[in-house]
Amino acid sequence: MTKAGKFVVFEGLDRVGKSTQAKLLAKARGAEYTKQPGAHRSTKALRDMLLNKKSQVSDFVEALIFSVDRSIHTEQVLRPALAAGKDVVCDRFIGSFLAYQGYGRQGDIDFLTDLSKRATGGLEPDLVFLLQSQRSFTNGLDNDRIEGESTEFRQRVKEGYLTLLEQNPDTWCLVDADGTQKEVAERITQLAAERLNWV
Amino acid sequence: MTKAGKFVVFEGLDRVGKSTQAKLLAKARGAEYTKQPGAHRSTKALRDMLLNKKSQVSDFVEALIFSVDRSIHTEQVLRPALAAGKDVVCDRFIGSFLAYQGYGRQGDIDFLTDLSKRATGGLEPDLVFLLQSQRSFTNGLDNDRIEGESTEFRQRVKEGYLTLLEQNPDTWCLVDADGTQKEVAERITQLAAERLNWV
Repeated sequence: MTKAGKFVVFEGLDRVGKSTQAKLLAKARGAEYTKQPGAHRSTKALRDMLLNKKSQVSDFVEALIFSVDRSIHTEQVLRPALAAGKDVVCDRFIGSFLAYQGYGRQGDIDFLTDLSKRATGGLEPDLVFLLQSQRSFTNGLDNDRIEGESTEFRQRVKEGYLTLLEQNPDTWCLVDADGTQKEVAERITQLAAERLNWV
Repeated sequence: MTKAGKFVVFEGLDRVGKSTQAKLLAKARGAEYTKQPGAHRSTKALRDMLLNKKSQVSDFVEALIFSVDRSIHTEQVLRPALAAGKDVVCDRFIGSFLAYQGYGRQGDIDFLTDLSKRATGGLEPDLVFLLQSQRSFTNGLDNDRIEGESTEFRQRVKEGYLTLLEQNPDTWCLVDADGTQKEVAERITQLAAERLNWV
């Protein structure tokens, strides 16, 4: 399948401002905004199974359900839009999977990477923004099952993201997520101009 | 986890008499009868997604959903029963997965085998009965999505089962499924006596 549009991904810890910035960029660019997991109607039940705090799922089951969701989302949302020449801005993608299920849960990175490649059929982002903040986020009662994990877990996720940034210098770039919404948006706009020639 | 009970599996094409014979053996032995997929309440939704003829799922998604189901079923049904010293008779297990998703769909056997081992945590049957009939089963309107596949697909599944039988002579044995229910049950009882010392 041809990939005529550009595929841009936002990664980072919860509450760092990913969704806000992803939507702002999509709007400015006339791109499609979408998110993982649960963007497609057929996977809503899976999303509930993953994020409901009452669910008891093993790390293995969690990884598989995310991959089912990612596979359906890639096939039914991402690829058709990109093939039609539309730019797509996606809130979380494989980076989150490796950072959370791999580094965070200390899972088998090779297996998870293989699973990711099969789930996406090898679709890779043209650009990944990793948003990072100096602020610390205390866990609130409104967290979902995964975000309700311990501080140590979040620290491993953070380090996992930095490892991915290091391993993928051509597509990943770090964004300072501190400052006003407008300041962060300007940093992103500038990086998009440099990396994708989006002006 | 200790495995104090014996774990017996019935494999074979649909309508060959697996469920009937598995239930008969379980009853005679006072063993627990269970089946895959969908034996556990939490995976009923997954089972519907797999077997509903209106579902459109890729081979990859199908394999993952079966593995989620198998993982939950193994953890929550099989292992606790076996650990408690109960014998378990299971209608379909990894053999069906490899025969259908691997050989039938011509999938990646290595990947599917790895997935199976992760889903079951390495739990292996003590004895597998492969039921085979000379009768041919024409497809009826009441088939589910997977059983509604072509004759060629069913032929590949059948050959897949025979390959598994060949590869696992210590645990797998072939059962002639033609004849009356009682005749087939007697063959199974005899094999169980020889292989497991079940008398």
